[in-house]
Amino acid sequence: MDFGSESLSRLVDEFARLPGIGRKTARRLAFHVLRSDDEAVARFARALTDVKSKITFCGICHNVTESSPCSLCTDVRRIDDQVCVVEEPSDVLAVEATGEYRGRYHVLHGVLSPLDGIGPEELKVKELLARVREQSPREVILALNPDTEGDATAFYLQKLLVPLGCTVSRIARGIPVGGDLEFADTATLGRAIQGRERMGG
Amino acid sequence: MDFGSESLSRLVDEFARLPGIGRKTARRLAFHVLRSDDEAVARFARALTDVKSKITFCGICHNVTESSPCSLCTDVRRIDDQVCVVEEPSDVLAVEATGEYRGRYHVLHGVLSPLDGIGPEELKVKELLARVREQSPREVILALNPDTEGDATAFYLQKLLVPLGCTVSRIARGIPVGGDLEFADTATLGRAIQGRERMGG
Repeated sequence: MDFGSESLSRLVDEFARLPGIGRKTARRLAFHVLRSDDEAVARFARALTDVKSKITFCGICHNVTESSPCSLCTDVRRIDDQVCVVEEPSDVLAVEATGEYRGRYHVLHGVLSPLDGIGPEELKVKELLARVREQSPREVILALNPDTEGDATAFYLQKLLVPLGCTVSRIARGIPVGGDLEFADTATLGRAIQGRERMGG
Repeated sequence: MDFGSESLSRLVDEFARLPGIGRKTARRLAFHVLRSDDEAVARFARALTDVKSKITFCGICHNVTESSPCSLCTDVRRIDDQVCVVEEPSDVLAVEATGEYRGRYHVLHGVLSPLDGIGPEELKVKELLARVREQSPREVILALNPDTEGDATAFYLQKLLVPLGCTVSRIARGIPVGGDLEFADTATLGRAIQGRERMGG
């Protein structure tokens, strides 16, 4: 389509490259940028390049950070004997948002996926084992996504972690809060029944 | 929320400022940027700043362009005696995408909205009247949004344009192609009946 401007077309292309952004939304975003003032756009551009130039990975938990070790690893108020293993840095934020966890983290940067050529060497598995050996945490919580790759990775890690003397647990699968039994898929409902919690008696 | 990185938080904020992008999507986009290679991010940042530094407005139709007059105004294959009046530069793209129109354009940069302090002086109305007086097009097509402000602006322009000796028309309102009468609102269905097309007989 002729946008009458090559630089506008390019910006639309860049927005459309982002995940979940289609051509129409990309166009709307590009026109929004066009209407924004110069300073706001310069700030946006700087935020983009800053993220790439300033962000590095924590030497302990492998989460994204601007200085290694990261603030979660150095926070003395956090519990040392629990390590929560997640797939991606964004999962750390999701767990933090619950306010239910006060231990440390370990970011794997993916899950095992042999078809995509992702084995243990591509993930931070070696680093996790070294850390557990060294720090001997009481519990390792596997907060991986409840899908095929997440399940396979969880079983793989469990086999390696249990011999090191720590408890390995996995976040519960079940009906989401506010969900409806009628519309739950059978696998989820089955898991919810298996993982039922005793209420007394 | 503690992102463990001030520059990452800032990028999330910038994405969340875009229209239609919530905090969760902004976070997903920021992590996507983090995973992209340096060159791709630099290209994105450059596209943002380029749009602001290179884009100007066409002296004739007031559409966005990198050189005035724009390619739509200088294209000799387009018909000179039709002018399509639209609200925003993005509407030019929407009309162009139909392939149904081969005339010229005029971008108002908004619609009349007294409550927001937008009167004729804030829009390219004076420029439209001067252009119609000078070029005497056969027809002015008002392709404004079919909402209250669009309607008011259309009636206002019609009053001013008709005395200048041109036909003033307005794009049809009716049931969208592929739409369903049952789910159409009464105003739209009413307009569709009023604007019915004779099929013969």
